[in-house]
Amino acid sequence: MVNKIEHIGIAVKNIDDANVLFEKLLGVPSYKTETVETESVVTSFFQTGTNKIELLMATDPESPIAKFLEKKGEGIHHIAFDVDDIETEVIRLKKEGFVLINEHPRPGADNKIVVFLHPKSTNGVLIELCQEIT
Amino acid sequence: MVNKIEHIGIAVKNIDDANVLFEKLLGVPSYKTETVETESVVTSFFQTGTNKIELLMATDPESPIAKFLEKKGEGIHHIAFDVDDIETEVIRLKKEGFVLINEHPRPGADNKIVVFLHPKSTNGVLIELCQEIT
Repeated sequence: MVNKIEHIGIAVKNIDDANVLFEKLLGVPSYKTETVETESVVTSFFQTGTNKIELLMATDPESPIAKFLEKKGEGIHHIAFDVDDIETEVIRLKKEGFVLINEHPRPGADNKIVVFLHPKSTNGVLIELCQEIT
Repeated sequence: MVNKIEHIGIAVKNIDDANVLFEKLLGVPSYKTETVETESVVTSFFQTGTNKIELLMATDPESPIAKFLEKKGEGIHHIAFDVDDIETEVIRLKKEGFVLINEHPRPGADNKIVVFLHPKSTNGVLIELCQEIT
C-alpha cells in the first residue's frame, strides 16, 4: 500500500545556489542538509505541505546523480512514495511486473530504508519507495 | 505563498496503458479523465495522500506534451504547486528573478487557473502554479 508522495528528488549541480533558489520559490528555507555516503550525494530538504523537496548534489563523478546530470542535466530525478512495509510492497510490485533496481532495502537519507523501481517498468519515472526507520 | 505540491505531471504515450500501470503502482484507480483542448492534452488523475498524479497524453503532434515526448521520452513533466492568489505569486516570483512562460493565468485541468515557470530559472524543473477556481 502506497501512502503518499514522501518527497520529490531534484538533481542539482550546486546545492548552495539551489538552496537559495528553492527558498525563494517555496518561501521556506532548507531545514536539513545530509550526506549519504553510500550514494555519494549531499541532500537538502524543504518542507512543503505534507511533502518534501529533496535536492541532490553528487560528491563523486561516478555516482548515479553525477551520471544523471551528465546525461540529462539538472531537473527532477525521482518521486518517492512512503510505504508502511517496504518488504511487502516489493513482493506485491514484483508480482505486478515492476522491475526493482535493488530488491533489498538499503539505507537512504532522512532516516529511511529505500528501494528503487526501474524507470523502464514505470513509464520512464524513477520511483523510490521509502519506509521510515522506527 | 506556495501551499503544497498539488500534483506531479507525467507525460505518457498511451494513457490507457499508463492508467493500468499507475493503478497497479498506487493501489487506486484513476478518478477522473479530462481533455484540455487549449493544451491539446488528455489528462488522468490519481489521488495519493494529499497530492495527485496527473498523467498527460498529447492529442496533437504539435502540442507541448508531444514535443516533450519526442525530445525526452516518457517521464516526469512538471511539478504543480497550489497557491491561494496566483496573481500575487506571479508578481512575487518575477521580483525574485524567476522567468514566467505565461504571465497571465490560463485555464488548466481540474478547475484551475495556471501559470508555468521556465525551467531555465528553476534548476531545470518545469514548475506550474495553480489556483483553484472558486
